[in-house]
Amino acid sequence: MSAKVLALSGGIGGAKLCLGLSQIVDPADLLIVTNPGDDFEHLGLTICPDLDTVIYTLAGLANPATGWGRRDETSTFMKVLKQLGGPDWFQLGDGDLALHVDRTRRLRAGEPLSAIMADVAHRFGVQPRVLPATDDPVRTRLHTDAGWLEFQDWFVGRRCAPAVRDLVFAGADTARAQPEFLKALTDPTLQAVVICPSNPFISIEPILAIPGVRAALRACAAPVIAVSPIIGGRAVKGPTAKMMAELGMDISAAAVADRYADLIDIFVLDNVDAELALSLPMRAVTAPTLMHTLDDKIALARATLAAAGIP
Amino acid sequence: MSAKVLALSGGIGGAKLCLGLSQIVDPADLLIVTNPGDDFEHLGLTICPDLDTVIYTLAGLANPATGWGRRDETSTFMKVLKQLGGPDWFQLGDGDLALHVDRTRRLRAGEPLSAIMADVAHRFGVQPRVLPATDDPVRTRLHTDAGWLEFQDWFVGRRCAPAVRDLVFAGADTARAQPEFLKALTDPTLQAVVICPSNPFISIEPILAIPGVRAALRACAAPVIAVSPIIGGRAVKGPTAKMMAELGMDISAAAVADRYADLIDIFVLDNVDAELALSLPMRAVTAPTLMHTLDDKIALARATLAAAGIP
Repeated sequence: MSAKVLALSGGIGGAKLCLGLSQIVDPADLLIVTNPGDDFEHLGLTICPDLDTVIYTLAGLANPATGWGRRDETSTFMKVLKQLGGPDWFQLGDGDLALHVDRTRRLRAGEPLSAIMADVAHRFGVQPRVLPATDDPVRTRLHTDAGWLEFQDWFVGRRCAPAVRDLVFAGADTARAQPEFLKALTDPTLQAVVICPSNPFISIEPILAIPGVRAALRACAAPVIAVSPIIGGRAVKGPTAKMMAELGMDISAAAVADRYADLIDIFVLDNVDAELALSLPMRAVTAPTLMHTLDDKIALARATLAAAGIP
Repeated sequence: MSAKVLALSGGIGGAKLCLGLSQIVDPADLLIVTNPGDDFEHLGLTICPDLDTVIYTLAGLANPATGWGRRDETSTFMKVLKQLGGPDWFQLGDGDLALHVDRTRRLRAGEPLSAIMADVAHRFGVQPRVLPATDDPVRTRLHTDAGWLEFQDWFVGRRCAPAVRDLVFAGADTARAQPEFLKALTDPTLQAVVICPSNPFISIEPILAIPGVRAALRACAAPVIAVSPIIGGRAVKGPTAKMMAELGMDISAAAVADRYADLIDIFVLDNVDAELALSLPMRAVTAPTLMHTLDDKIALARATLAAAGIP
């Protein structure tokens, strides 16, 4: 279909819906904006997990077993890094490493992240535009009961164990939102903004924390639709439910809708949560939101756009 | 045997003799000093080909087919780097890359190269001490008929094609020789200095160009023995013969001996060059110098040390 759609996405879950959207929206009309908050420096390399996961997923290169990393991957680098006593807590496949090494080389040479990744996406055969929300560093840090932790130290290094009390998005204050992102939000022909079923705290809110983004979303003429990452009181994957509990929230799709209440026009929640739909302060639409197969992803993308009035 | 031996080595050919020496000299008594001139920065990584080749060879990790790189290696990184349009002219195996990435991380954190590589050698099970001649950068640059070229641009990037007119060892003027290297040269119990059968111009002379090294070699009480890299007017491997011709020298073991005349006491040349031995200005010893098997390497190591009076 020819409908201008902007999607905000984190990693694995968000990438699934983006893949569904990419199957039904003309590539030239789909802009995917990814979360910079998971990015980090490791082994001297700049690693952008959410951006890379979206690109790998859309390119058909993602590892289907994990959702992150590449399919047909080898792990010789990690084996030798371990022998060398190097920092081996973050898994990096040999092919994935090429992206991190070459990206870091290009960043050091002065190319903006967005330009590098547009080229990478093109080389991997990804047609829709995939854009980091900003070219400036925004880094999620968590205040936990084990002290302040960098995001990946908590997420991978400590397997999300320390309870989260608060989050900050270091650098967000001064980060500049991608002009292309802000321009899309004010484009009168934009037909929908989709907030993917990603973790609100660590995948979507780092994007929202960039100056101008919340205001532009609120001012946006197109409907803003969020898809719940919580189904029947549980997260499909990752620490969303655990974080909601630790932050004193109900673990429910309704609590996610509440979190986005000032931004969204429509909330898509799973059929199993139909009862909650009745009590939400915004329009609610129910659909099957669990995405196993490509057909599941396409069906949810269709349901989401249909909720925005796109046939 | 317990005999204090110091070896100066380049990459593949030198590493073979070092392996031979390591089989007959007590590890605590063998110090191998490697050429820094081939080192370079690539993809943001510090790569030390000669040092690594010696360590891989002594560790039994070297690729027997190439002499450089690792055995049981995968090449997923290079495959993806090529897809990304990255600089793929220098082959880097996935396991080898771990050494470059982790070394670069440690260098940036302020560890000296020699300390990092002592740890790497230890982790790979290498017992003799393997030491870069200096912790400071020394980089071979070649004046060629295609202009000035960085060493690896010429050696790998252009497959040694441009004719060499002159060489400089950038940084050598101010580089500080390893104290451990200079100390070994003045050690009254040192029994032999072995200049391995490496390319004199690009493997040995970058070491000799470091302030104090030539003087210490000349003043050294132990015999200094060079092993010819030229056999029957041909180089075993690499551009030695080509460079000799381009620099206006005879391509012969005698010309190598002449190049080292002010430094060495004994020259070891191949049996096929026995006739040349008669005309050399220093003591000459002939031996089978072609090293295919481990036994060949051990035999040449024995013959070399025997020439120095070590039984």
